[in-house]
Amino acid sequence: MKKYNAVPYTAVDIDGGFWAYRQTLNREVTTGAVMRRFQETGRFDAFKMDWKEGMPNKPHYFWDSDVAKWIEGVAYLMKKGSVPEYEQLAEETIDLIERGQGEDGYFNIFFTNIEPENRFVDRSWHELYCAGHLIEAAVAYDEATGRNRFLRMMMKYADYIDKVFRIDQSAPFVTPGHEELELALVKLYKHTSEERYLALAKFFIDQRGANGKDELVDRHAASQRVVQSHMPVREMTTAEGHAVRAGYLYSAMADVARETDDEELLAACKAIFENIILRRMYITGGVGSSRASEVFTVDYDLPNATSYTETCAAISMAYFARRMLTIEADSRYADLVERVLYNGFLSGISLSGDRFFYTNPIAISVRDHGRNVSDPRRGEWLPITQRVEVFSCSCCPPNVTRFVASVGEYLYTADEETLYVHQYMESSAQVGMGEKAVCIEQKTQYPTSGEVKIIVRGAKGKKVGLRIPGWCADFSLNAAYEMEKGYALVKCEADECEFILSMEMKPVLVEANPEVQANAGRVAMMRGPIVYCIEGVDNGERIWDVRIGTDMDAQSEYDDVYKMPVIRARGWRRKAADGSWLYRPAGADEMEEVSLNFIPYYAFANRGETDMQVWTLKK
Amino acid sequence: MKKYNAVPYTAVDIDGGFWAYRQTLNREVTTGAVMRRFQETGRFDAFKMDWKEGMPNKPHYFWDSDVAKWIEGVAYLMKKGSVPEYEQLAEETIDLIERGQGEDGYFNIFFTNIEPENRFVDRSWHELYCAGHLIEAAVAYDEATGRNRFLRMMMKYADYIDKVFRIDQSAPFVTPGHEELELALVKLYKHTSEERYLALAKFFIDQRGANGKDELVDRHAASQRVVQSHMPVREMTTAEGHAVRAGYLYSAMADVARETDDEELLAACKAIFENIILRRMYITGGVGSSRASEVFTVDYDLPNATSYTETCAAISMAYFARRMLTIEADSRYADLVERVLYNGFLSGISLSGDRFFYTNPIAISVRDHGRNVSDPRRGEWLPITQRVEVFSCSCCPPNVTRFVASVGEYLYTADEETLYVHQYMESSAQVGMGEKAVCIEQKTQYPTSGEVKIIVRGAKGKKVGLRIPGWCADFSLNAAYEMEKGYALVKCEADECEFILSMEMKPVLVEANPEVQANAGRVAMMRGPIVYCIEGVDNGERIWDVRIGTDMDAQSEYDDVYKMPVIRARGWRRKAADGSWLYRPAGADEMEEVSLNFIPYYAFANRGETDMQVWTLKK
Repeated sequence: MKKYNAVPYTAVDIDGGFWAYRQTLNREVTTGAVMRRFQETGRFDAFKMDWKEGMPNKPHYFWDSDVAKWIEGVAYLMKKGSVPEYEQLAEETIDLIERGQGEDGYFNIFFTNIEPENRFVDRSWHELYCAGHLIEAAVAYDEATGRNRFLRMMMKYADYIDKVFRIDQSAPFVTPGHEELELALVKLYKHTSEERYLALAKFFIDQRGANGKDELVDRHAASQRVVQSHMPVREMTTAEGHAVRAGYLYSAMADVARETDDEELLAACKAIFENIILRRMYITGGVGSSRASEVFTVDYDLPNATSYTETCAAISMAYFARRMLTIEADSRYADLVERVLYNGFLSGISLSGDRFFYTNPIAISVRDHGRNVSDPRRGEWLPITQRVEVFSCSCCPPNVTRFVASVGEYLYTADEETLYVHQYMESSAQVGMGEKAVCIEQKTQYPTSGEVKIIVRGAKGKKVGLRIPGWCADFSLNAAYEMEKGYALVKCEADECEFILSMEMKPVLVEANPEVQANAGRVAMMRGPIVYCIEGVDNGERIWDVRIGTDMDAQSEYDDVYKMPVIRARGWRRKAADGSWLYRPAGADEMEEVSLNFIPYYAFANRGETDMQVWTLKK
Repeated sequence: MKKYNAVPYTAVDIDGGFWAYRQTLNREVTTGAVMRRFQETGRFDAFKMDWKEGMPNKPHYFWDSDVAKWIEGVAYLMKKGSVPEYEQLAEETIDLIERGQGEDGYFNIFFTNIEPENRFVDRSWHELYCAGHLIEAAVAYDEATGRNRFLRMMMKYADYIDKVFRIDQSAPFVTPGHEELELALVKLYKHTSEERYLALAKFFIDQRGANGKDELVDRHAASQRVVQSHMPVREMTTAEGHAVRAGYLYSAMADVARETDDEELLAACKAIFENIILRRMYITGGVGSSRASEVFTVDYDLPNATSYTETCAAISMAYFARRMLTIEADSRYADLVERVLYNGFLSGISLSGDRFFYTNPIAISVRDHGRNVSDPRRGEWLPITQRVEVFSCSCCPPNVTRFVASVGEYLYTADEETLYVHQYMESSAQVGMGEKAVCIEQKTQYPTSGEVKIIVRGAKGKKVGLRIPGWCADFSLNAAYEMEKGYALVKCEADECEFILSMEMKPVLVEANPEVQANAGRVAMMRGPIVYCIEGVDNGERIWDVRIGTDMDAQSEYDDVYKMPVIRARGWRRKAADGSWLYRPAGADEMEEVSLNFIPYYAFANRGETDMQVWTLKK
């Protein structure tokens, strides 16, 4: 099996442009905002495990994971600079974890403090999911600080889980109800080189949907499909069930396939990936079409107003794609990472950095909220229209902080011969290629500009693979290249080489496959990797009735509010009716020309509640 | 207050054309089919009131109404011919009602046989609704047969209700939870001339939403709006709540307004009517946009695939409009009757005459049924795609039989000066105009043809008002006329006059008001009063992606299967994609020309489960 090394975030400095701005916002605003919300809601105090009936803020069984993700994000920040307030809280929390951990290694707030009798009883109670996040945090913390106390604690916990689940098989269920632990165990294995953690990850992967025991104890999941336990994983060819669970599972499957040279497992990963990007993914990279159980549904079922498209699910797609890039240099994986980064993930955070979407609607019609006054049930199916500071189920905010802080890890993979550039960001990095230590610098205002200057030092004789994005219709390069699976491969002829890639960056109208019923007759505006939307606040009422066509004469202009260009284009709409008719002969359309204002999709809902759509009627 | 006399069905013979065919089908197939389903499900036997725990077919609290409507329909048939099998069953059932009626006059299967302790306890248990249908049936039966036994029984019941609700006010609630009794009482009043029944109807109308007591005992309704009790009826300006309840209430309001010269009540009726036809009605005349409580929602909320549009609700709109025509000669009322008759009502019956829709979807995407495999809840929101023989809630089938059998009552109203022709059907009728007995004959193949020959005898010096339908862009008439509120008024200059009205009948594309989000960018095909649809079985996959424009070159041709023209028109669609892409630049549409087959909407879903849509993308 072909393998590429992932270049870790630790080796990459993003030192300018859009993502440097975003990382600063994450450090200075988002991480602190999440911290304070978690403090206010008792999530940190919960680690004291002294909650008693009658006290406020009863711990929930997934709170461990919320805080673990936050600590993981803090570790990434600590590696790149000083964040003393966060560091102190992280250390205090690790103290509490140390104090609260059982002799046997077990750690879980809820099942120690609240329901100790229910330890490892119910597959769906997120216990192993929490364990996974604690392990990921511990690995990141050790990597960032060199202080291995937390890591040792979590190794002990992992060993306990190994004993209960793999060796003794003494729990009433076999595999996690919410995947996450599997990929964490591979991280732990790679960080510690302890094979037993890989073996445990592989055990969970192998047993999934194949053990005949899980379904007997799974009380909450509507079906085994929701938790990807409807069949053995190697037989899977489609993305199914709860989208976050799915993305974490597929990530772990890719990990295990790579680490164990499991071609069958890799084939399943590839089939699932294709199913996602060709049939089950919103244009934003969001996944999970249904609020019901937050699931993937069926091919081409991509409703816009009721899309679920959880922020965490988008992140999980980036996780999956990044792991696939360590097995295969195929630009489709990096394309998905980019699609997620700039759209379906980024929409999860407000421009101010302190508010979040759990679900990311692809269309909002404000009037739909509050319809059906006689029955409140229908409204439940619509995502909220405004980002909020905290959720009772707050998985997304700390997933945002750790993702942004570690975004450097999405830029490169390499083997001895080739250094692949997957994402374009102003940055510098150190990459090991066999014996060689290669420096690579990117100078760019991408994606505001389509021009990227890449300076490579110390790679004489090596190749560099520059991703030509799937959205890019035209590009030029100042060197001879060969195309291979979406990468322009250039050769470093000298110790220092400079490559200049120019990608055409003009607004383009995109159509969806005719099988996508929701988008029939509609087009979306894109410019480079950025999906655009129109909002009512800029474009007036009835944006659903607006038309745009090939004569749109689109002009883009950088806007400092969004740190990205906005687009102005010519459109048309039917003249407002006076209410004197409901149906009439269509005859000549009474259309009026309008000027349409498109903003990046990720920036929608930052100016109060207003209509929004990505897909506009095609003239 | 201006008043017109309704010409009853008894005075009208429909002796050819579409409705004669439909009436024959109703007599020979539908009425018998409903009878047998009701027999099989124990609805007739329930009148024996001998059901005991452990027996099959436990009576439901609205079964009285199902059978009552069937008997009412049979009465209409008996007036026009011999139906011995139905008549015998009707008589037997009336025997059982006589046997089962209480000394005090009370009659209800469920609250006599099953829960006698709960008589008049719960407003939402359809007890007074059942009473209303029994009264309507009794009036119709007496009118048709001259046998007044059933009528006398129901007068006794009405007197008992009058005592409990109006005189003693001894029940814990004041007005019916499901309206129907109100309009039945007006019928009873008009048939018997007993003022107390009108007084009771008026009492219920006056008390509705104004008594402060009903809401305290209304256990099931999600809100008072569902049962039109959110405000006093005279303050209402919009159609609200459960659509069938609403239609029956508005009918009774119009009745009471007319009979008591209540201008304020009439103003409310007019406001509500306008709200319906200008804001809350599907193009088919169907109403009730939401499955949740089967309600009207808000202005312009007319989703197609999840439309509720119950057959009974469509019928109730015809009831309301017909009553308004007895107060005001305005063609918009007759337009609504026609829209309902040929579309949103007629779709409720199969072409075979023995299967029914309770809900009438405006669009079907078969693939939506069975989506969200992980969670069955979402599917509940979609109407069924195929008509069935019987429902557990079987209000619609016997509403169909009585409606079709009495369709003659929608043709005419008259006062001393003017005979208004509201509906065009091959028929002959006797109409009293003051002292004069006028004969009116219609010779027409309407709406297959737009030509109607009307022969009027004995009306010299009187006027005839010929409705020029709202859909009609062009017409000619062989006599001088004046237009008044949608009627071409012609004068009868001789004892026998012949008027020939020719209405242009070409296929037309219709648009919805821009406020209707669901139909943005889409048009519907109509020809005369008939709304057309396309089905997958004729038009292949992905009908949602089909386009049609002004160059459609539509050709209509009579089809004996539908007893109506079908339409063939030029359309376009994007070429099928090969699955290798999900999103791509829209550039030049790869459109291919297709020939589209439109059939009358009422005839959809008669050839197996297939996609259907009324609203097609506009090219």
